[in-house]
Amino acid sequence: MVTMNRNKVVVVGAGTVGSTVAFGLVSHGLCNEVVLIDPNRTRAMGESHDLDDGSEFFDRHVNVHVGDYADCANADIVVVTAGRRPPQGSNRLQELGFTVGIVGQIVDDVMASGFDGVLVMVSNPVDVMAWYAWKRSGLPRSQVLGTGTALDTSRLKTIIGEETGLDPRNVGGFVMGEHGDSQFVPWSTVSIGGKPFARFLSDNQDRFSSVSLDDLERKTRDRGNAIKDAKGGTNYGIASTVAGIVQTILWDERRIVPVSTLLDGEYGEHDVFLGVPTELRANGANEIVELDLTAQERERLHHSAQIVRTYCSGLLTH
Amino acid sequence: MVTMNRNKVVVVGAGTVGSTVAFGLVSHGLCNEVVLIDPNRTRAMGESHDLDDGSEFFDRHVNVHVGDYADCANADIVVVTAGRRPPQGSNRLQELGFTVGIVGQIVDDVMASGFDGVLVMVSNPVDVMAWYAWKRSGLPRSQVLGTGTALDTSRLKTIIGEETGLDPRNVGGFVMGEHGDSQFVPWSTVSIGGKPFARFLSDNQDRFSSVSLDDLERKTRDRGNAIKDAKGGTNYGIASTVAGIVQTILWDERRIVPVSTLLDGEYGEHDVFLGVPTELRANGANEIVELDLTAQERERLHHSAQIVRTYCSGLLTH
Amino acid sequence: MVTMNRNKVVVVGAGTVGSTVAFGLVSHGLCNEVVLIDPNRTRAMGESHDLDDGSEFFDRHVNVHVGDYADCANADIVVVTAGRRPPQGSNRLQELGFTVGIVGQIVDDVMASGFDGVLVMVSNPVDVMAWYAWKRSGLPRSQVLGTGTALDTSRLKTIIGEETGLDPRNVGGFVMGEHGDSQFVPWSTVSIGGKPFARFLSDNQDRFSSVSLDDLERKTRDRGNAIKDAKGGTNYGIASTVAGIVQTILWDERRIVPVSTLLDGEYGEHDVFLGVPTELRANGANEIVELDLTAQERERLHHSAQIVRTYCSGLLTH
Amino acid sequence: MVTMNRNKVVVVGAGTVGSTVAFGLVSHGLCNEVVLIDPNRTRAMGESHDLDDGSEFFDRHVNVHVGDYADCANADIVVVTAGRRPPQGSNRLQELGFTVGIVGQIVDDVMASGFDGVLVMVSNPVDVMAWYAWKRSGLPRSQVLGTGTALDTSRLKTIIGEETGLDPRNVGGFVMGEHGDSQFVPWSTVSIGGKPFARFLSDNQDRFSSVSLDDLERKTRDRGNAIKDAKGGTNYGIASTVAGIVQTILWDERRIVPVSTLLDGEYGEHDVFLGVPTELRANGANEIVELDLTAQERERLHHSAQIVRTYCSGLLTH
Repeated sequence: MVTMNRNKVVVVGAGTVGSTVAFGLVSHGLCNEVVLIDPNRTRAMGESHDLDDGSEFFDRHVNVHVGDYADCANADIVVVTAGRRPPQGSNRLQELGFTVGIVGQIVDDVMASGFDGVLVMVSNPVDVMAWYAWKRSGLPRSQVLGTGTALDTSRLKTIIGEETGLDPRNVGGFVMGEHGDSQFVPWSTVSIGGKPFARFLSDNQDRFSSVSLDDLERKTRDRGNAIKDAKGGTNYGIASTVAGIVQTILWDERRIVPVSTLLDGEYGEHDVFLGVPTELRANGANEIVELDLTAQERERLHHSAQIVRTYCSGLLTH
Repeated sequence: MVTMNRNKVVVVGAGTVGSTVAFGLVSHGLCNEVVLIDPNRTRAMGESHDLDDGSEFFDRHVNVHVGDYADCANADIVVVTAGRRPPQGSNRLQELGFTVGIVGQIVDDVMASGFDGVLVMVSNPVDVMAWYAWKRSGLPRSQVLGTGTALDTSRLKTIIGEETGLDPRNVGGFVMGEHGDSQFVPWSTVSIGGKPFARFLSDNQDRFSSVSLDDLERKTRDRGNAIKDAKGGTNYGIASTVAGIVQTILWDERRIVPVSTLLDGEYGEHDVFLGVPTELRANGANEIVELDLTAQERERLHHSAQIVRTYCSGLLTH
Repeated sequence: MVTMNRNKVVVVGAGTVGSTVAFGLVSHGLCNEVVLIDPNRTRAMGESHDLDDGSEFFDRHVNVHVGDYADCANADIVVVTAGRRPPQGSNRLQELGFTVGIVGQIVDDVMASGFDGVLVMVSNPVDVMAWYAWKRSGLPRSQVLGTGTALDTSRLKTIIGEETGLDPRNVGGFVMGEHGDSQFVPWSTVSIGGKPFARFLSDNQDRFSSVSLDDLERKTRDRGNAIKDAKGGTNYGIASTVAGIVQTILWDERRIVPVSTLLDGEYGEHDVFLGVPTELRANGANEIVELDLTAQERERLHHSAQIVRTYCSGLLTH
Repeated sequence: MVTMNRNKVVVVGAGTVGSTVAFGLVSHGLCNEVVLIDPNRTRAMGESHDLDDGSEFFDRHVNVHVGDYADCANADIVVVTAGRRPPQGSNRLQELGFTVGIVGQIVDDVMASGFDGVLVMVSNPVDVMAWYAWKRSGLPRSQVLGTGTALDTSRLKTIIGEETGLDPRNVGGFVMGEHGDSQFVPWSTVSIGGKPFARFLSDNQDRFSSVSLDDLERKTRDRGNAIKDAKGGTNYGIASTVAGIVQTILWDERRIVPVSTLLDGEYGEHDVFLGVPTELRANGANEIVELDLTAQERERLHHSAQIVRTYCSGLLTH
């Protein structure tokens, strides 16, 4: 037979994020098999059963089960959502070192299986972790990516939708840089309905007088923390985003998504992972779109790169 | 215009169950508008934003927002997921009284809006709460239903699927009675692939020798508690089930689903809500299918009815 | 009950286009009820049964049936696909008069039912027919629209996708003007991946050296006739487009789609229907986006308007 | 990379059936790639472009294109819809010989590519053609199947739905035997809502007094010809059925579908393909469910087998 194991996605980490990601995959019927891996196998089993329990109502039957790293051998995609609270009193670098310890072990275990698919990093700080996973795995550049500013971009469009009443999918454009406080919106490249976004606003001042670019950008950047403050974490937005990325990869759609990928000269940056518009294919992250940024936007991207690089270099000296 | 507000679903209670139900509705694009109501408006706002944040990746744009009871006025469906832990040290009846106090207030608030759609109760004990909501709301019988044994039925099919490897949707049949320990499987009416299920097993003994009816029934009944033990609650299975029920109602599919509905002579029972196979239409629960139960199955249904009725009568004397 | 008849779409004309439109609606589960109306009731019955026959495999059950104009009374949307070959030897204006005779009768019959939803015209020449249907029906401007250049726009994106390998949905922009030979692409407003499209091509000359704007525009304009030459008509592309428009209206998405709508001062034109980017809502066509066209593009739009207006005035003197 | 070519479906024959099958695959987003093969390459190109043209409105981007038999090399599924009207004045056996000539050449061309997926035969008489393709291809039994009575079964459920108003998916059971006039409904194995279907009718005589088993069976058997009389052919029902079969195979769902598969002792028959309930997996047709037929039903199956076998033996002597 041509292929018997196809469209298999492994989710490492069966916490709230990992299990909601799995629910997104199952709800959209995006693959045949979803495998949950977690050191707490009981928890993973509970999530797996709970996910499976609605199977009568699914449009497509997806096989959800608990597994171990051997399951990665023939997986198309492994999504890493793992993360644990670092020991109380750790400083920033100690925290990072703590997470890197966990992620490093996961990457080793995934690679030991013979995995040769696409590794999608969700664990934060995602740009650092994606870079680290790429270094440690030895996988080609395209096969390791982070969710980057894909969620931030969807948030920007969502917030524009909330403020204008329009369908978020009308908006073209991206949030760029770090998935963190140094991210930014290159407004000169954002459009809606065939117009530069700023122009669209000024042409429709009567309808959208209360909408300001700075406000939209700030709300987008703060959205994650605002949700964390309100409900103790985030899971649905990231789950939909990962489902979107998985679909694009499995269907080989060549959609342009601002995942975190290796900059190797693009935008004048090297050896750093950042959220930039990237063609996603069956083999992961491909060509990066180099937007015509203004000098100020370019500076903000460089600033973002510096921050992420500092974390990364801290890791190696760690 | 013929209709401007259509396919609006209100979810009361923005806890884990309520927000996962909303995620299911949004992921399947089942309605135009999902409204979250919760006394903790900040929490509800966080869930609403988190749900909305993946909107770039949705197939259909669904408007999710926080609202209040006035939103129920033109809602097609109101799903009640509310529930809080009763005060420590309460006995069984005190606990029930506590939940009824919450649910009663919700029903009053919903009805005060002028609501005239279908009320779907999820709060447990769901058979008691659905009966109570029906009494209190004054709505016609069809317009109040509980999720009943719909989740248990999906669980039974899922577990059969897990044990046989077959698609759960091959299974025809229902779990009946209380959504609780007194539920049962009327095996004489369960079929798979055109055969009585028990016969299917015996005809394929070489493949399914390890599968036993008692075991399947026990696992189905215990599944909820096993998941609660493993992960502290259940949310995905019930969310898929509610999405299935909402779809069936909004599309007026006339699918037969074992929701909790008023028995008014059917199966010889009166004035009690139990999970029995019921035709779901746009106006909610319609004709009940009266299965040809064995004497023993009939006895188990009666036993289940007694238990639920006892709780209910306790409420009124409360 | 709040609403019992909801998401009902009537398709007038059960020929190849009408029945494929119905198949698109059913396959996507976009509504509860699809009604086919055709003077050849036997043909309509055959299409209805054939459409229905796959119902076991549908994700959502949609009720498809043959009906008559009374069915329009509570329909949300009526799609008019009717058209017949005019008598041999007719000249252009006689042909138009012939089609208008058919469409006029349909509009009268639809309106006689008390219809107050959105009328979606597919019959060609669609800009003329949409204008005529609007005049004749007396419906508000928003409630009558033609498919306009929505299909041409999807074709442009599809052809860009075919030539670049990228996902067509990466492309932002519209084909504008007449759904016919005078249509044009306002390239200055077309973007991909956050860049003006022309710039994207020149920045990636190594990959896309064979792609030219003129060629893309010509292929888009000629696509319909090329398909007609190859297979005798077109049906799938228009069916997907109508399904997209129906979804946007029924879900009240406020997506911007270049349907054919009344220009009432926008772009300096009056009393003419043309394909221009338009916000679609539950009540049909709303605000038109006025793109910043170049002088040449503006001239082409005016030229297109002149052509359509000439047809229309011919109708009235007819 | 683990797999780069995945979920590729080739449709041989770009006539009305083949192109509608392709539209079904694309509308449901069931695979990444759909390839059309037809001796009339211009026609195929027209269909391919028309199918592709709605891509802006697809939920998932599917790559549709014209190809040749080399495309079958790494295809998961090849669907054969080819068929041409035999020369006027042919007798039954000459007609069969004519079709077999076409199908035989197709099978040879498919196999010459190195194809090792699942061959789904749609060309009629489908039971004969599936048997012939199996013999000729040398593929394992599981990898060759015909659509069998899957469409007839969906028709039975649809007609039950039309007559009772209930969701067709409530019905459990199958039409069996030849996809032709000798097919039959083993009523003793058909159920609805947990009841034998006949019992369900008699228990609800007030609602369903006009429904009779003989009538339902006759309507099911005659449906195809009735549709052909009304519209000149059938395409939508078969397209939905093929989409359902393709989904079940690609998702490895193990759904039980009455495809046409080799009987090798089951039901006492040998060396004949007939529509019988069969577990579909990633590798095609697997275990056959042997229903407990009544003596009369068994006789009807045997009669159906005889008819198909006669055609087949005619082929070999041809």
